[in-house]
Order: sequence, then structure tokens, then C-alpha cells
Amino acid sequence: MAASPKFALSLRRLSCSPGVVARYAPRYTPAAQVRWNTSNSATTSATTEPRQPDAEGGVKGKTAAAKAIKFTSDSYPELQRDSKFSQLTQDHVKYFQELLGSESAVIDGVSKDASEDIEPFNADWMRKYRGHSQLVLKPKSTEEVSKILKYCNDNLLAVVPQGGNTGLVGGSVPVFDEVVINMQRMNNIRSFDEVSGILVADAGVILEVADNFLAEKNHIFPLDLGAKGSCHIGGNVATNAGGLRLLRYGSLHGNVLGIEAVLPDGTIMDDLCTLRKNNTGYDLKQLFIGGEGTIGIITAVSILTPQRSQAMNVAYFGLESYEKCQEAFRAAKGHLSEVLSAFELMDGRTQKLLHKATGKKLPLEDEHPFYCLIETSGSNTDHDSEKLQNFLEHVMETEIVSDGVLAQDQTQIKELWACREGIPEILGHWGGVYKYDLSLPIADMYALVNDVRDRLTEAGLVGDDESHPVVDVVGYGHMGDANLHLNIPTRRFDKEVEKQLEPFVYEWVQGKSGSISAEHGLGIAKKAFIGYSRSETMVKLMKQIKNLYDPNGIMNPYKYI
Amino acid sequence: MAASPKFALSLRRLSCSPGVVARYAPRYTPAAQVRWNTSNSATTSATTEPRQPDAEGGVKGKTAAAKAIKFTSDSYPELQRDSKFSQLTQDHVKYFQELLGSESAVIDGVSKDASEDIEPFNADWMRKYRGHSQLVLKPKSTEEVSKILKYCNDNLLAVVPQGGNTGLVGGSVPVFDEVVINMQRMNNIRSFDEVSGILVADAGVILEVADNFLAEKNHIFPLDLGAKGSCHIGGNVATNAGGLRLLRYGSLHGNVLGIEAVLPDGTIMDDLCTLRKNNTGYDLKQLFIGGEGTIGIITAVSILTPQRSQAMNVAYFGLESYEKCQEAFRAAKGHLSEVLSAFELMDGRTQKLLHKATGKKLPLEDEHPFYCLIETSGSNTDHDSEKLQNFLEHVMETEIVSDGVLAQDQTQIKELWACREGIPEILGHWGGVYKYDLSLPIADMYALVNDVRDRLTEAGLVGDDESHPVVDVVGYGHMGDANLHLNIPTRRFDKEVEKQLEPFVYEWVQGKSGSISAEHGLGIAKKAFIGYSRSETMVKLMKQIKNLYDPNGIMNPYKYI
Repeated sequence: MAASPKFALSLRRLSCSPGVVARYAPRYTPAAQVRWNTSNSATTSATTEPRQPDAEGGVKGKTAAAKAIKFTSDSYPELQRDSKFSQLTQDHVKYFQELLGSESAVIDGVSKDASEDIEPFNADWMRKYRGHSQLVLKPKSTEEVSKILKYCNDNLLAVVPQGGNTGLVGGSVPVFDEVVINMQRMNNIRSFDEVSGILVADAGVILEVADNFLAEKNHIFPLDLGAKGSCHIGGNVATNAGGLRLLRYGSLHGNVLGIEAVLPDGTIMDDLCTLRKNNTGYDLKQLFIGGEGTIGIITAVSILTPQRSQAMNVAYFGLESYEKCQEAFRAAKGHLSEVLSAFELMDGRTQKLLHKATGKKLPLEDEHPFYCLIETSGSNTDHDSEKLQNFLEHVMETEIVSDGVLAQDQTQIKELWACREGIPEILGHWGGVYKYDLSLPIADMYALVNDVRDRLTEAGLVGDDESHPVVDVVGYGHMGDANLHLNIPTRRFDKEVEKQLEPFVYEWVQGKSGSISAEHGLGIAKKAFIGYSRSETMVKLMKQIKNLYDPNGIMNPYKYI
Repeated sequence: MAASPKFALSLRRLSCSPGVVARYAPRYTPAAQVRWNTSNSATTSATTEPRQPDAEGGVKGKTAAAKAIKFTSDSYPELQRDSKFSQLTQDHVKYFQELLGSESAVIDGVSKDASEDIEPFNADWMRKYRGHSQLVLKPKSTEEVSKILKYCNDNLLAVVPQGGNTGLVGGSVPVFDEVVINMQRMNNIRSFDEVSGILVADAGVILEVADNFLAEKNHIFPLDLGAKGSCHIGGNVATNAGGLRLLRYGSLHGNVLGIEAVLPDGTIMDDLCTLRKNNTGYDLKQLFIGGEGTIGIITAVSILTPQRSQAMNVAYFGLESYEKCQEAFRAAKGHLSEVLSAFELMDGRTQKLLHKATGKKLPLEDEHPFYCLIETSGSNTDHDSEKLQNFLEHVMETEIVSDGVLAQDQTQIKELWACREGIPEILGHWGGVYKYDLSLPIADMYALVNDVRDRLTEAGLVGDDESHPVVDVVGYGHMGDANLHLNIPTRRFDKEVEKQLEPFVYEWVQGKSGSISAEHGLGIAKKAFIGYSRSETMVKLMKQIKNLYDPNGIMNPYKYI
């Protein structure tokens, strides 16, 4: 076989020199610390991230006042404040101040001007959504949350539950004058059982804090995502976050064993079970997983955490077609089986743009239409390496992959991951990005990227110079989860581009029975589009649930369904 | 280290000779084929299985007419038929006959005597529950299920959804004259995607059929249990079955990706998603997983299936204390990590009774207070063996285990599994068994067995001769899932024993925040005891859901919550 020696050679001399590609390590800073730059926000439902926070947690480009962010009520003029909700008064504020005691627990913008202090809670980190809230509450206990909600419900005050405020669909910031209930002060780890691996923690514990705590106990949080330095585990559960470990450890619907939540009427749902098995009645907590704070506030979670793996390997390949990527995925499932922990897809265009924007050398010398990144993690380094070697020999000998490299140490692991994780940041290099987070059948996944590119190209919108708004149309994502990130890097946001994108993308996804929101949720951004992924019957049944739990509609209004 | 050579020796000469212990392979036959023997049923909520089906699917002991089984309405005199439900008429039957067309789809005991034909659908395989139904319907499509339910709802006819009728808590048989809706004719596999491993199948597909289908595709159903030859996957999902693969593959709440179900008013909930990720609204299907047919009938499921493992190893140990069992579990999680697929606990008494009842030689020569069985399954035989060898050396050198054997081939694997899987059958050897299926924190799990044994012993109920009703009090179960099977083999059912057991066992479990039903569900058997595992608030919230979906209460009445 001709291919095999070439690969073996690549394995011996990893072509990217150490330090050339530094691992992109996004650590989103808490809302309070994000600096903003001005933007002319897009009006599509696509997630727009003209500048992502950089590795240091800041944002590139010039700093601008938070007030430069457009109000959501202006971006969505069809949204009107629901007149059934009461206006906040000083009496309301006084009640909360007495209830919560501590001065730092209440940011009062009702009886005085506190807009600077409240702004970080009013706006999201993407600078796309901004509310008019005048009151932020930071309860310290489940009982306080209960009393807050009961009072709000009795007095028809609308509320927005808020965790780390790192969401991508505007779900965690107010639209009008909703009271922000921020969970950052409920941040205790309640218990950890080293035999069962079951962790119980307050909703406001930061994901990275939980994961670091578990690392000391040789366990791992079964969820990882870029915002781990800021996001709260309660928010993760409320949005059913997906992220990087889903392929291996499965979804939160399987891993979350119990939830403590407060319902709008103040009822504490004490379902903080620490058992793997408990078949005694309806599994109500599941409604709160992905419920986006619309039927209650999660105050604590109980979660099953796996043992931390001792060994890790990462390989990066070039492939000649999307069909070959699918074959590689099948082969990886077969050969790597229980140690496969990531199978990521990047098209050639993302890698070319990465090179163009950073000037850094890519791991493979030749260009390929597609690239895949595979990670294994297991308990035995030698075994994992051997499995990976067998897999590599197979995919090279059968010419499933054209070329590839295997990381030899931690530095190289980071370099290879940077080729995947660096994409979101780099796509903002030219201006803005239209981003769609989609689930599609694996076989069809990449065809959408081609169709969108053809469509925009035919409309004369794609090109290499300033006269064309669109730089390129690219695709990458969690192939192992059939989760595609369709991204359209642009020089400027453009109505014509938006007209070409929507509803085209959603109709395409609907045609393949896909999901218009794989892991980001609905929030405000996708609320209007749920019909592309759910039938009228399903939406009707969901509204029943909303009405059952929140008959006054005070929980996170104007969003979700 | 003294222990190490001894173990190495055991490894070389596996002490049980081939064929001595045949693997217990329970294959419960469908309801229609079960032969019954007479019994004086226990009246506790414990699952009583005086005779389990044997390996050939029959039941030992003399055959008796099904009519020998006591009616549930007699065993539970406090249950009264709800007078709001209509009585079945010939007009009703005529409607169903016209709707379903085929003669075999309706068993009509209303216009004629069909009690012999209906009896297998009226009674459960444990011979503990028996209803008075006069009508069995076997729809062939989701639309037929929809029309049946709408008609029943409009006419206030109570119904019982029925799968393979292999449940352990009386959930799948009627109490009074409920219409049985049996799903056996909806038995098509709808689709399978070899890349993603996602299977879509009708609810009435038998678990073993689904697993065999997947085996041909090199995949595995992420659930396995003794009744696999009869139980339906729809019933598995409706009862959130646990079984043997949960430790490795997790619960159905994580693996089921979509459900098609029919609500009492005939609405078809079309949530048959085939995506791993879909964050578009409340995850309503979760309510049907473990809902035991009380809010709708599952007609199809979409489920994520893993790759089938190529390699399997099984080891069996003797340990000197329950504390050592916990240490062994921790060591297994550490050393075997991703290939650990079962960690089962058996106390010494179960193994002694196994030997006593069968006369067969046990794998280890000496007696030990506790035994554990470990199974690994992975993609590489050599790697798994080496991991297991490392684990064995560790647990022997540190004297966590006292002795052990490792299976060398498939026959020996079966022999070792027989020491665990043979227990339920063998415990019925002396007459009957009081069985409890409990979740408890691992650290406390076995203490309950000791406490119950002490309690019954102090009451003078345990002994070696006929004057004592209780033979012994034993514990075994899925230690990896913290799921204990507390079993009390008896010579006869005895009121005094029952008085000692209940509510003592439930109060004990409640004191440890355990679950009174880990994997068997509530049905009739545990309905009255949910308060030991769920708060009043939770039960109230569950009843809200029941009322929301089934306001007329026609679905599986008299059961669950």
C-alpha cells in the first residue's frame, strides 16, 4: 500500500513545529468584566459573534460603552412589554432588600440610578441582546429564591433567571424590565461521593470550579465547553448544554440524577436524588433540563461524574471528501470504540481561513477538502496508542484518509486542537459571522454548507474583495454528535445576505428532520423558528407545560416557545 | 505478597470444571404460553416469585389452571372499580372490530365467553395479579392506537397498555374490566442508521429481536435483562427498565432520543427525533420514560445504540467484608474504567444456597462472606485482559480480595455468570421469596440486609427446619448502580414475617434517602409506598402531570401514583 509509509512518516515527524499553533483556550469572562466594541448587529436569528472573547478573556477591537448595544426591544420591535406585569416600585425593592439582607445582594436601579452597575446583567456577552431591567437580585439560598419567586408571582413581577450569562440565544438577559435573579452567590459544592462519583452542587457553581474540584478526586464533569470559566452548572442544566464531552459521556438528560428547583409560586421541587436508579413516578426534573428557566429556577443539581482518563491522544487528518469523513467516523467507532472521546469535522475552507488570518502553518503540508480531529481518552496510554495505531493503519491502507499526523506530547495535542477550537475566533477576522448551530443526519450534514455557498455565490454575494459582503461559507462541528456549525464569515452584515439565509437554512434543516438548535437552545433568537423542528402538536403540548407551571407567565417571558 | 501467587494459581487452574454450573439463561415466555402452578400468594408489596420461569421458559412444579390465581381485586380489597368508567357493551366491541378489521386483533369476551383466551392478558407471569378484562385489542398502527384511545376517552372506557407483560409490579395487567391494549402486532423495525447507530422501532418489537437485529449490524441494544425474549422495547421504555448494561451505557433517559406516543384524547405526540442533540423546547418524551402507561401509549421509540464490543472478560472473587467489596468497586472503576461493563455483588449466603439447592461446586473452594463478579467488554481482547490482570494484581496484593478466578473461555464466562444470574431462581427452591428492589447509597447498601436478618432472627422466624418460615435473608444486585436486591427465601408466606418486613424495609430505605423501587417501577405493588421515596410536593406535582394528560383518568387506573 502506497499510503501507509507516508502516514508512518508523518507520525514520526509531526510537521507542525512546537508553539506554532497555540491552543485556543476560550475563557469567557463573567458578564461584569466583558468589554464591548461597537457593532451594527445583524438582524437574522443566526448567532452573531463579530468578536469572540480572546484567550485572555478580553475582546479584540476598540472598547466601547455597553450602551452602544442595541436594546432587544429595538431589534425586535414586534415584542411589546406585557401590560399584565406590574411596574417595579420602591416598595417592591424594599421587600427584596429586607429579604436578602446583604447590600451586595440587591442592585437597585429603581430608587436610584444604577444603570452602570446593572448593565452587565442587562446585556449578553455577544453584545446582541440588551434589556431594561432596573433590579438585580442575588439570592444566597434556595429559601431566598423561593421567597423571591413567590413575591414576584403574587405581585405579577416578571423575572429572568441568570447564571453565568454566557448563552448564545439571548435567554439569560431581560427584554424589558424583568427582575434579574442572578445565581452567582449560590456557589457551594454540597457533597461528593467518591465511590459512586455523584456530585451535588448549587446551581451557581462555575463549571470550571466544579471540574477542578472533581479533578482532585480523579473525576471529571461530564460536560465541557468554551465558556467553562464563567458559565454556571445550573445554567448548563437549564440550557441542556452539549459541548465537547457529549460523544463520550452522553447528554445531561442521562447524567443529571436530581434537581432542586423553585417553581414560580415558590414551591421547592426537592428532587435532588443521588441515586442512579429511582423508578418512583414521572421524571419531572427532565422538564427543567433544557427548560431555559421558563418554568422554574434550578437551585442545585445532582450529577453522575465519570472517572478522569489518564491517557489522551489526538490525531488530525486530511480527507478528500465528506464521504471519506463518514467512513473515517465509522472506522473510528469500530477501532477506537470505548476510548473515542471526540470526532470533530473541519472543512478545508476553515483551515485555509485559519492559516490566512493567523499566518500560522497548518499541521499538514498539502491542502485537503476536509479535515477530521480525533481524540481518544482512556485509562491506559499504551492501549490507547495501540488502538489508535491500528485505526490509523486501517484508514491509511484503505485510503479513507489522505494524510494525517498524531500528536506526540501535550504541546502537540494543543496545537492540533487549536485547528478546531481556533475556528470560531478566526472567522470573525473579517468583520462578523452568521452562525447556525444545527443537528442533521450525518449523511446530509455537509450538503447544507455546499447548498448555502452555492446560493450566496449565485446571488453574487461571495468574493475575495470588499465589494462582496461574504468572505466564505464554511462548516465544522461535532461530527460525532451530528452537530454542524454552519458559519458565514462576512465583511459586514448585509440585508441581502440575510434574505438569502433565512428562511432557506431553516427550511433545508426541516426537510432533513434536523434541529434548528442542536445545543444553543431557543431563547429569543430561535423562538420564532421552533416550528421548523417541532410540530404544532409538540409546541401545543409544550405550551400546556408552560401554563401548568407558570400560569402567570412571569418566568423568562418573551422567549422560548 | 502471600496472596498474589495464590491468585495467579487460581487464574491458571480455574477451579470449577466445565459444565458444572450451566449459565442461567432466563427467557421468559410470552404471557400466552406461561404455565402456572398454584400458590398462596403473599400479601406484602414485595415482589413474590415462588417459581420463576426456568431456562426452558416453563415453570417448575405442577401445572394449574390460570384461574387458580387470586384476583387483584380480592388481594387488594381496598381497590374499588371506579364507577365513572363505562361498562363495555357489544356496541363498543363492534366499533373496535370494525376499526381493527382483522379477527385476530380483537379478543371479545363481551359478546361471548372468551375467558380462556383472555386469561393470559389478565394475569401476570408471577401469578400475583389478575384482572377481569373482557376485551383485548391488538392495534397494528399508531393511527389505530389513536382511534382506540380517542374512542375510549370519549366513552370513558378505562384501558391498560400492555407490552410483553413481563413486569414485576402488576403494571401491565388490568385490575377490573379495563380494556387491554396489547402492542404485540406493532413489531416493525422502522430504520437503522449504521453511521450514527440510531435505531427506530415500533413499541411492540421484542427486546431480543431488536438486539439480534443490531448484532448483525455490530451494534448492541443499550439495555439487557432476563425477560429479553418476551419484553417489548416500548414496555422497557415505559417502565424505564434498568438491567445489566446500565453501568456501562447509562439510563434510557439518556439513550432514548425520541418517542412517538398516543395521548388519551388520541393526539399523536410525534417526537420521534433521530438526532443526538435537539434543544428546541421541553423534553416531553422524558415523562413517558418510566410513566408506566399512565399518560399515554408509546407506539415507537428512537434510540442510540452503541457499537458491540469484541472482547469480554469475567472474573469472580471472594472478599472478607462488604467494605472490601466497596474497595474492589473503586479499584475496578480506576483500573478498568472504560471497559468495566458489570460489577455485581453476591453475599456468601446466596452462593451457599446456590450450592445447597443445586449441589453444584462453586468456583472458589473456600467460603467467603462476599463475592463480586466483574465483567469487562471492549474492542481489544489483549488490552482488556491486560487491564484486568493489572486490576487483579492490585486487588490481590493489597488484599482487597481474598481469592478469585478468571474465566478463560465462553463456557467459563457462562459458569461464572451463573453464580449471579442463577440466584433468583434458586431462592425459590424452598417455597417463595420476598423480593425488594432498592436503590441505596453504596456505603449503606448491605447494612439493610444485616438489619433485616437480625430482625427476623430475633423474632424467631429464621431457621434450618420446617418450623421456621424463613430460610435466610440474603442480598445481591447491581453494585455498580447501587441497586440492591434484598431477598428473603421462605418455606411459606407468613403474616408474621410480613409484619416484620413492612413498613420496616421502607422506613429503612427512606432513612437513607434511597429508592423503594430502583428499576421495577410502581405499578400496583409499590403505589402505596411512593411516599417513602418522594416528598408530598413531588407526588402532588406528579399528579398535576397525570391530570394534565389524562383528565378522565382512563390510562392504567388504580396504579402508579
